[in-house]
Amino acid sequence: MAPPSGESPLGNRLDPHLARYAKRTHGMTASEIRSLFAVASRPEVVSLAGGMPNIAALSMETVSSTVANMLATRGQVALQYGSGNGDQRLREQICEMVGLQGIAPHPDDVIVTVGSQMALDLITRIFCDPGDVIIAEAPSYVGALGVFRAYQVDVEHVAMDEHGLNPEALRETLKTLAAQGKTPKFVYTIPTFHNPAGLSQPQDRRMEILQICQSAGVLIIEDDPYGLLGFDGHIPQAIRSHDSDGVIYLGSFSKTFAAGIRVGWAVAPHGVREKLTLAAESAVLCPPAFSQLTISTYLDTQPWMDQIKIFREVYRERRDATLEALTQYMPEGTTWTHPTGGFYVWVTLPEGMDGTAMLPRAVTARVAYVPGTAFYINGDGRQSIRLSYSFPEPDRIREGVRRLGGVINEELKLMHTFGTLGAARPSVSSQGSTPGPDVV
Amino acid sequence: MAPPSGESPLGNRLDPHLARYAKRTHGMTASEIRSLFAVASRPEVVSLAGGMPNIAALSMETVSSTVANMLATRGQVALQYGSGNGDQRLREQICEMVGLQGIAPHPDDVIVTVGSQMALDLITRIFCDPGDVIIAEAPSYVGALGVFRAYQVDVEHVAMDEHGLNPEALRETLKTLAAQGKTPKFVYTIPTFHNPAGLSQPQDRRMEILQICQSAGVLIIEDDPYGLLGFDGHIPQAIRSHDSDGVIYLGSFSKTFAAGIRVGWAVAPHGVREKLTLAAESAVLCPPAFSQLTISTYLDTQPWMDQIKIFREVYRERRDATLEALTQYMPEGTTWTHPTGGFYVWVTLPEGMDGTAMLPRAVTARVAYVPGTAFYINGDGRQSIRLSYSFPEPDRIREGVRRLGGVINEELKLMHTFGTLGAARPSVSSQGSTPGPDVV
Repeated sequence: MAPPSGESPLGNRLDPHLARYAKRTHGMTASEIRSLFAVASRPEVVSLAGGMPNIAALSMETVSSTVANMLATRGQVALQYGSGNGDQRLREQICEMVGLQGIAPHPDDVIVTVGSQMALDLITRIFCDPGDVIIAEAPSYVGALGVFRAYQVDVEHVAMDEHGLNPEALRETLKTLAAQGKTPKFVYTIPTFHNPAGLSQPQDRRMEILQICQSAGVLIIEDDPYGLLGFDGHIPQAIRSHDSDGVIYLGSFSKTFAAGIRVGWAVAPHGVREKLTLAAESAVLCPPAFSQLTISTYLDTQPWMDQIKIFREVYRERRDATLEALTQYMPEGTTWTHPTGGFYVWVTLPEGMDGTAMLPRAVTARVAYVPGTAFYINGDGRQSIRLSYSFPEPDRIREGVRRLGGVINEELKLMHTFGTLGAARPSVSSQGSTPGPDVV
Repeated sequence: MAPPSGESPLGNRLDPHLARYAKRTHGMTASEIRSLFAVASRPEVVSLAGGMPNIAALSMETVSSTVANMLATRGQVALQYGSGNGDQRLREQICEMVGLQGIAPHPDDVIVTVGSQMALDLITRIFCDPGDVIIAEAPSYVGALGVFRAYQVDVEHVAMDEHGLNPEALRETLKTLAAQGKTPKFVYTIPTFHNPAGLSQPQDRRMEILQICQSAGVLIIEDDPYGLLGFDGHIPQAIRSHDSDGVIYLGSFSKTFAAGIRVGWAVAPHGVREKLTLAAESAVLCPPAFSQLTISTYLDTQPWMDQIKIFREVYRERRDATLEALTQYMPEGTTWTHPTGGFYVWVTLPEGMDGTAMLPRAVTARVAYVPGTAFYINGDGRQSIRLSYSFPEPDRIREGVRRLGGVINEELKLMHTFGTLGAARPSVSSQGSTPGPDVV
């Protein structure tokens, strides 16, 4: 039947398709911090927000000659459709690489994905019905929370201590869930150089978490994009190295080569990888052969470990600049983590302060960060902020932290004058969908 | 609680994770024709199965110099994370390209995806709850059916005639659904050089279908990967050119440049594209900048329309070889479509024959095709098969069709001797998930 004249045949005026969306789409809204980040991308703003790899440390000539070499030798394969689970040679090379973390999979256990974000999406797709529960660290990776939200999954946050995910808190959460008749579909953890917390699990902590999950019959999703980026050159052994059936391991070339090629992977047990491959084919048919063969040729012909050592130096220098500047400029009552690898420092503001409410002022003062609330599903994290040091030059980082110190001091003054900075002030919400690639 | 010793802590022996999967995963099984295609990929088999573009017609030197140029000028962008909706310049270029089909979108209306397969996945994700109904042609694209199945969507097939989707049948189906209180979420159609049917909708047919959908308040998903590949150089105007609110248009560079870069796009109304972008960010963060900037540089610096003309010639020559060979080798009672563009001929076998049951014999006779059942959600299509002529050399196509003619003749003889070829013979099922990238 035709709708009354004068009205769009498709519904209301704002979005005529509104009535058509799936239930899962209703929670899909752009986070308010997006518009702030549009401002934050101006050159005068020091952005400590996005976790962008420092691509300038990679030789463009090397990439260029690698692609030329690849096209000359495997061009017909690179430009054609490929296997849903990825290029065979690349999967062999990934097996060699994860050997550094103590993992010895068969190439068939590896599924190549469009960044490890896609592996997260596919894993959630095959395991989680709406209303299912998963466990994640508090705080956790914003992109993973976005996926869990998109699949209408309930996230239970488990506290971290200075050694990462806290085993007592994990046991407690599992017990509470069991009492409610719930078994979580998996525990999602970033054991090494955690995003956003900047912490790493020591080996005994890893073993303890694994044993807890094994006893409870709960799968572990081990997300490890930064594992090779330890500043002292030490490569932590993956949880997956101790259990090939109970752990799905995720890796990525985004931080060891380049994010723009979008190549990541999952190492998964037999039955799971078959499902992941079918899900991947439904999602994108196959990952880009062009990207895959570029990285494969790079690994075969270039001293990639030397490049990783360069990246480590680049990030170590920036971590140092960040920590020094924090010591110099942060007011009393501010604390922060001391990352030994990766991209991030997690800063806890003085009691009573709100990093989400402070963001517009920080951007006005020409420094940007990601408020802590982005890393929680439930609005927690207001007293914290994440600083990413991966991209700016060390001097810019120092200047950014100096500006941030000024903003925090101003806020503290206001707070001491008026008692509280609460509800009366304009704020932004960091809730909603993934805040986008600019804050990964 | 720990499980009894001797048993995996995670469940049964075949797949210890079986009890954990989401409901949507239970229907996810590899199609049996996959194992046959593994055999069919041997060099002695003429494969008329996969719709692989003829990459050999593209100059590898051109691609190589394009990438070198791109890395020299935009390398830092190409290797970095980008926007969830794709590169701005590429979206402008896509607007110019779809102008050829009469579409005049704003660059903001374009979302770049990892092949148009990803656009199909995202569209289904944002619109369809489990149990929702969508309408598709009978037969329809196997990769789309895989997506609909993965999201637990009910597909209603609507008959085609020699001008594509039949308007009477569409009206009838909408009426029947309305009587059941159901409104389909969208009509999925490939109006130009249909995969697998090899048919095109004339302009008046397009207008009629659009009007039917507008009256019923039903969205159209117009999938158009082959639109520029008409053999007479004529470019049909898209349905989207007549309605920018009620149609989502999908395009791809897989067939006009190269499939291995995995770059496709959706042109969508305002509200929808916002949702699509959020869904894309959750799925892959952002499409590969490396691929996007390669195609963008190619479009800016190379005579891409001349290349498309070369592709048209390549495919026209192969279409001719296919049709000539069909005339020469097919037994009486066999009919086929006469595509004026694209990659596919849809062959209807003599009465009583079963293209799915025949496939193992065909592969034994060293020729492969995709059985018609793969293009239906419901087991229909047994009397049909799809031949793809895009990839093999014309002489190989003729030899393949000759072998196929032999197999059909043998089958006919058996049928005339024994009356039927039914249940007693070994067969394969083409049902299950997407049959994989080898049969797109």
